[in-house]
Amino acid sequence: MAKQQQNAISPVRENNFPEWYQQVVKAADMAENSEVRGCMVIKPWGYGLWEQIQGQLDVMFKETGHKNAYFPLLIPVSYLEKEATHVEGFATECAVVTHHRLELKDGKMVPAGELSEPYVIRPTSETIIGAAFARWVQSYRDLPLLINQWANVMRWEMRPRLFLRTAEFLWQEGHTAHETPEEAMEETRKMHAIYEEFLREHLAIPVIPGEKTEGERFPGALNTFTIEAMVQDRKAIQAGTSHFLGQNFSKAANIDFEGREGKREFAWTTSWGVSTRLIGTLIMAHGDDDGVIIPPRVAPTQVVILPIIPKEEMRESVLAACQQLAKDLRSQQVWGAPVRVEVDERDLGGGVKNWEWIKKGVPVRVEIGPRDLEKGSVAVTRRDGGHRDKAFIANEEAVAQMPDTLLSIQNNLLDRALAFREEHTCEVHSAEEFHAFFTAQNTDQPEIHGDLHWGTGADLPRTKMLCRKKAK
Amino acid sequence: MAKQQQNAISPVRENNFPEWYQQVVKAADMAENSEVRGCMVIKPWGYGLWEQIQGQLDVMFKETGHKNAYFPLLIPVSYLEKEATHVEGFATECAVVTHHRLELKDGKMVPAGELSEPYVIRPTSETIIGAAFARWVQSYRDLPLLINQWANVMRWEMRPRLFLRTAEFLWQEGHTAHETPEEAMEETRKMHAIYEEFLREHLAIPVIPGEKTEGERFPGALNTFTIEAMVQDRKAIQAGTSHFLGQNFSKAANIDFEGREGKREFAWTTSWGVSTRLIGTLIMAHGDDDGVIIPPRVAPTQVVILPIIPKEEMRESVLAACQQLAKDLRSQQVWGAPVRVEVDERDLGGGVKNWEWIKKGVPVRVEIGPRDLEKGSVAVTRRDGGHRDKAFIANEEAVAQMPDTLLSIQNNLLDRALAFREEHTCEVHSAEEFHAFFTAQNTDQPEIHGDLHWGTGADLPRTKMLCRKKAK
Repeated sequence: MAKQQQNAISPVRENNFPEWYQQVVKAADMAENSEVRGCMVIKPWGYGLWEQIQGQLDVMFKETGHKNAYFPLLIPVSYLEKEATHVEGFATECAVVTHHRLELKDGKMVPAGELSEPYVIRPTSETIIGAAFARWVQSYRDLPLLINQWANVMRWEMRPRLFLRTAEFLWQEGHTAHETPEEAMEETRKMHAIYEEFLREHLAIPVIPGEKTEGERFPGALNTFTIEAMVQDRKAIQAGTSHFLGQNFSKAANIDFEGREGKREFAWTTSWGVSTRLIGTLIMAHGDDDGVIIPPRVAPTQVVILPIIPKEEMRESVLAACQQLAKDLRSQQVWGAPVRVEVDERDLGGGVKNWEWIKKGVPVRVEIGPRDLEKGSVAVTRRDGGHRDKAFIANEEAVAQMPDTLLSIQNNLLDRALAFREEHTCEVHSAEEFHAFFTAQNTDQPEIHGDLHWGTGADLPRTKMLCRKKAK
Repeated sequence: MAKQQQNAISPVRENNFPEWYQQVVKAADMAENSEVRGCMVIKPWGYGLWEQIQGQLDVMFKETGHKNAYFPLLIPVSYLEKEATHVEGFATECAVVTHHRLELKDGKMVPAGELSEPYVIRPTSETIIGAAFARWVQSYRDLPLLINQWANVMRWEMRPRLFLRTAEFLWQEGHTAHETPEEAMEETRKMHAIYEEFLREHLAIPVIPGEKTEGERFPGALNTFTIEAMVQDRKAIQAGTSHFLGQNFSKAANIDFEGREGKREFAWTTSWGVSTRLIGTLIMAHGDDDGVIIPPRVAPTQVVILPIIPKEEMRESVLAACQQLAKDLRSQQVWGAPVRVEVDERDLGGGVKNWEWIKKGVPVRVEIGPRDLEKGSVAVTRRDGGHRDKAFIANEEAVAQMPDTLLSIQNNLLDRALAFREEHTCEVHSAEEFHAFFTAQNTDQPEIHGDLHWGTGADLPRTKMLCRKKAK
């Protein structure tokens, strides 16, 4: 117990959630700040998680008929200007490219070769992709056009936080063009629903789908749908958005086509995106005071095997057993793919390694030492339980049970997050009730979070209010 | 025959290879120029090919112990300056970010918020990754550090050509740090060999591995190893490079560590990369006068099924048969994965569709019409044969044979490319022979290609000279 406290994250969640978050990311070795203002380095464990998110979302996008493509990083300023609300929304946070080379002047490298028109690094790609769509779409037969891009984007951030708000981030941006507003709205809703499903089923995060108010819409959109997750400070975080853009961008970029009646018509477009912010959301939703907890479905490594080698002469046999177990586990399938296993053979003390993996949030740790070899058993510990809740299980049983164990952890994380949200949620059904609730003195003084909004979403199942009960 | 000529690419390869290349890329719908100087749009068919290349290379990198990570897009100019040869090599082609917002001035958006230190968009990441490595490496126990990044980079190009030379391109850049020069050199060679294997076994392109001369080295490297492919204009193209960086970058970025003897030492580093130029190389290596030919192993779609629907009432049964065939084919495995099949259900004439897929270079086309339904057969055409060499094959047989057909096409493309190279290659064994060869009047006037170099590679199997025999 003393050891656990020594290694745990400080501060704990209840005392200082933002600082706990920074410490957890650092302890899990997922990302770090770089010397470039607001830009992070995503380290292998963090990037491995992004690879899982990317790969699994990509399958969902392709199953719904989308294809990936790639568009220029730079956007001429004149493009951005074509949609008035859009440029206004992004002008204050654009990295601007003004020169195309460096030259030596007074012993220092300085910008040279000034561009006749400056470019911005894409903060989002509606305008540059719109220009391509205008070339690609000639007739209603070319529609719908269903494109997705995986890319880096840049929005100059004055108050960066790893994964949550960074000047550069990785994301996907879907861009589609349709013949009718109904089809475009159907697409907007479909992707909204896919995000909700992905967070629930893959990240084990229950979200509330809803619609943003006018003031919170994407600059240039007619409607913005959002999924909002409650994390452990009882605040909501926007985890993904899907925009119905109407004809705003098609008129700005001239995406028109010959309609069924032979007349020129403007296309109806949508865009939708999620980013590396999902990683921050996941950490804040599931982490505990010992570190990150990664849902098994998206964990880069689902099971880590830790060899216990008290004496040098046992090394070979213990490592051989570990490698054999890894091989056996990899022959098991879960979520349609082989179990992802790593043997940590580094020359470090067992306790150090164990704590590293706890902080990284690997779902299952398996220890094998000489005594386990004798008994033909292994020690299995789930990350979602107590760290000393080791189960000593016969080798073959551990292998056979692993898929179920991983499924069980995944379900447990979702159930926990759902219970937490339910516990900290109350429903109001009218504007009057809303006002009454937040002015009443007997409600444990809830605080409204900045992202909170009064959803309209008439045809959405129901709109809930998330309110934060103040920590004692 | 008349139809084929009508649809074929103009000009043909022998008449104007550079123009043929542009036309082929366009006809295959793989990429197009954008309005952003030197930047291309990679369209779904081109990007799908990149996804295959990326996915398959990524497996090879991970199998050799590398992990992916992500580093900032922007590099402070002062970082670039730390390695003198390096900054000199890239200064003339850097996109420079000087401002962080736009503001309205006289009705126009202009750059505002000037940065105290300008950034360049990464042309390559040795310096920014070096800064991270300096933080990560403390002791010899932290080595080797084996990192790869998939990213976009930017080098301002005055004479862009789709995939071959573009201002922005996609690539991977491996960066590793080691304790000793021997280990770093072993890594440099290992990745060089992986590139050679990937081009041969996945892209069906035989390459000549060798070492660059001093003048052609990567700026800041001690050795640069290259793989050079001969394409159909009988010129060599550099397809990938692997650099031994010695301690140049570790000294510049201060990547030092406590050695086994307790002394501070500088790490030995390497870097290695391939880019979307591989797509251009592939097109130039395998394309014919009808369009692109994509090796099956990396084709986004390996088999396209084309429904033949002469009368509307047959639509349903023909489409059902196509979908069933697609399903059956997907249950077959080739190169360890299910066969990638697409049914082209678009409402277009069969001839139009057929030619689109020829130009795209899909390895196998399968047609199914009402008569085939009656006979229980399908018409199979290989892209590497004559377009009218249709094989009418019983349904089940076509399914069972498909993996072998794809393997056979892959081998055929490699054999062809190898035979072409052998035919246009002669060996010289000394500088004297080299001079004699290129001054002799009886050699059909070979031309030396700009990328050609006199390899040193003392311990490489042998160094060949590629020479171009002038077209008649």
